[in-house]
Amino acid sequence: MDRFTMRAPDDFHVHFRSGDMMRAVVPHTARQFTRALVMPNTNPPVLDEEEMAAYEEDIRAFLAFKNLSLEPLMTIQIVEDMDPARIAKAKRRGAVAGKVYPRNMTTNSANGVADYRKLWPVFAEMEEYGMLGLFHGEHPDPATFCLDREARFLDILQSIAEDFPGLRIVIEHVTTAAAVDCVACLGNNVAATITVHHLYLTLNDVIGGSLAPHHFCKPVAKRHEDLLALIGAATGGNPKFFLGTDSAPHLREAKECASGCAGVFTAPVAIPLLLQLFEYNGHVNKLENFCSGFGADFYGLERNEGAVTLVKDPWVVPPLYDGVVPFWAGKEIVWRME
Amino acid sequence: MDRFTMRAPDDFHVHFRSGDMMRAVVPHTARQFTRALVMPNTNPPVLDEEEMAAYEEDIRAFLAFKNLSLEPLMTIQIVEDMDPARIAKAKRRGAVAGKVYPRNMTTNSANGVADYRKLWPVFAEMEEYGMLGLFHGEHPDPATFCLDREARFLDILQSIAEDFPGLRIVIEHVTTAAAVDCVACLGNNVAATITVHHLYLTLNDVIGGSLAPHHFCKPVAKRHEDLLALIGAATGGNPKFFLGTDSAPHLREAKECASGCAGVFTAPVAIPLLLQLFEYNGHVNKLENFCSGFGADFYGLERNEGAVTLVKDPWVVPPLYDGVVPFWAGKEIVWRME
Repeated sequence: MDRFTMRAPDDFHVHFRSGDMMRAVVPHTARQFTRALVMPNTNPPVLDEEEMAAYEEDIRAFLAFKNLSLEPLMTIQIVEDMDPARIAKAKRRGAVAGKVYPRNMTTNSANGVADYRKLWPVFAEMEEYGMLGLFHGEHPDPATFCLDREARFLDILQSIAEDFPGLRIVIEHVTTAAAVDCVACLGNNVAATITVHHLYLTLNDVIGGSLAPHHFCKPVAKRHEDLLALIGAATGGNPKFFLGTDSAPHLREAKECASGCAGVFTAPVAIPLLLQLFEYNGHVNKLENFCSGFGADFYGLERNEGAVTLVKDPWVVPPLYDGVVPFWAGKEIVWRME
Repeated sequence: MDRFTMRAPDDFHVHFRSGDMMRAVVPHTARQFTRALVMPNTNPPVLDEEEMAAYEEDIRAFLAFKNLSLEPLMTIQIVEDMDPARIAKAKRRGAVAGKVYPRNMTTNSANGVADYRKLWPVFAEMEEYGMLGLFHGEHPDPATFCLDREARFLDILQSIAEDFPGLRIVIEHVTTAAAVDCVACLGNNVAATITVHHLYLTLNDVIGGSLAPHHFCKPVAKRHEDLLALIGAATGGNPKFFLGTDSAPHLREAKECASGCAGVFTAPVAIPLLLQLFEYNGHVNKLENFCSGFGADFYGLERNEGAVTLVKDPWVVPPLYDGVVPFWAGKEIVWRME
């Protein structure tokens, strides 16, 4: 197989940041994806429909200026003290989803949630107005062992899913076999995104050899058996699992320092690396639904009409894009976007 | 308690490196310790009695030049293809111990051991000539999950301990409850060192928040229950557990980079931080044996005759010593060497 064509994909989880960084990273996503669900944990964060509209306008203006084709799907951040009435307003302005961060567990999450029960009135509004709830699925108790935080969050996930059966819930960037099993067993209102890098990494790639800050992200990659569970979920054809890259750029200096930021920048390599992985595992025929089908379905969007083609033409990933070290830097990828 | 005096301590595991780095770090160890067991994984490594004698001469010349008082205890590295006859020669030149590294598992270990069975003839010589065997206790199979490598090494440890009952064995810098339990259960020919930083850190301090390269070491710190087991072993009065700091300096640039080195530089803060911990846990009376008694006993050395005194006089650890970020940098320690 030297060429591969499939329906144009969507990225249901991406960090664009703002300002110069936004302008540096958006083109990479636009080159591969038709739609991108844009995370709201910018600095400052997107907390209401006005801030969301302003952020969307920034992105659209840049896309127009660069003549790039990409549909941004906008989100707001859900915080503990928010007025539930905000949900209807945000939905009216086009918010597709609300994102819930556990407090202090990842980038720009100091305003995150510690007590999920406080959000029940907000979840009720989201359920009513058809706004999806997206969860960074780690327990917010900082005493929880870092590798157990996702598994410990699953009880919270289950209680939300059961109390709000009409709320469409996505547990983002799952990293454990426990989360895969849980999502598979919960109702059809629960799905999960899987990133590209979590289909390649284990904790051994972060701390098992030299320390690899460019493989450090939240949730951190786990055991080999978790990796296998994720690959199984991504390639298994279960519509509850679809792509969200969580591509998360940080300047190299913010990763290679005494207090390194969490995040892996996969936007430049996402679809080629996925095709490489699905081909290697003998599941090329499952790639289109994972990247271009199940996500749109779960979000209630039409599947894209266009197509993308990749050609087998090995290339070496550059060491740096605009100051950001990409995933797979310096290594070869056999597939390239045509 | 505002002053604390105890028998002068020994550090049974320290990395001095060579050249400028050796000259930068040796004074810190000399300020707190009477004797220091010097690790041989320099670059190039100390593989025979000639290299060991030259390295010792470098250290002694520097100590004399600086008028510092410290007794270096010298070691050689044990590698797979070594001639067992080397043991007697090294012992005659003063080697106290041979250090065994698992291949590629830590700093300068590309020449380490993959197949421990190949070393049985060497261990037999070490047993005969009374040279201690020191083990970096992680399984050398790189596919082993990073947090399981120490536990998986314990079978190797047990087989060596049982086949060579006259060989005094130290499993260095233990990090798990499993290793503590194993050492406690094996014969009296087996002991373990515990570092200062492993009495303070868990994996949460490395990857649980921001990425902390200055807390990254091999073996990496583990779970909270492992931390509690280590504190229990250090403060419990069992003569099988004694201090080896594994103080391991790297230039800041070699830690804060894309491929960070493993090692924590504790030499400037070791005894004050230990006293702080033992006091906090109500076991001040157990500190002297841990630092100044059990190690000398196991090595068959006289306990030191001198004493050290610490005074309660809080100080903030500097951010950098000669280009190396020390453990506890920027934080306060309540005890200070008098």
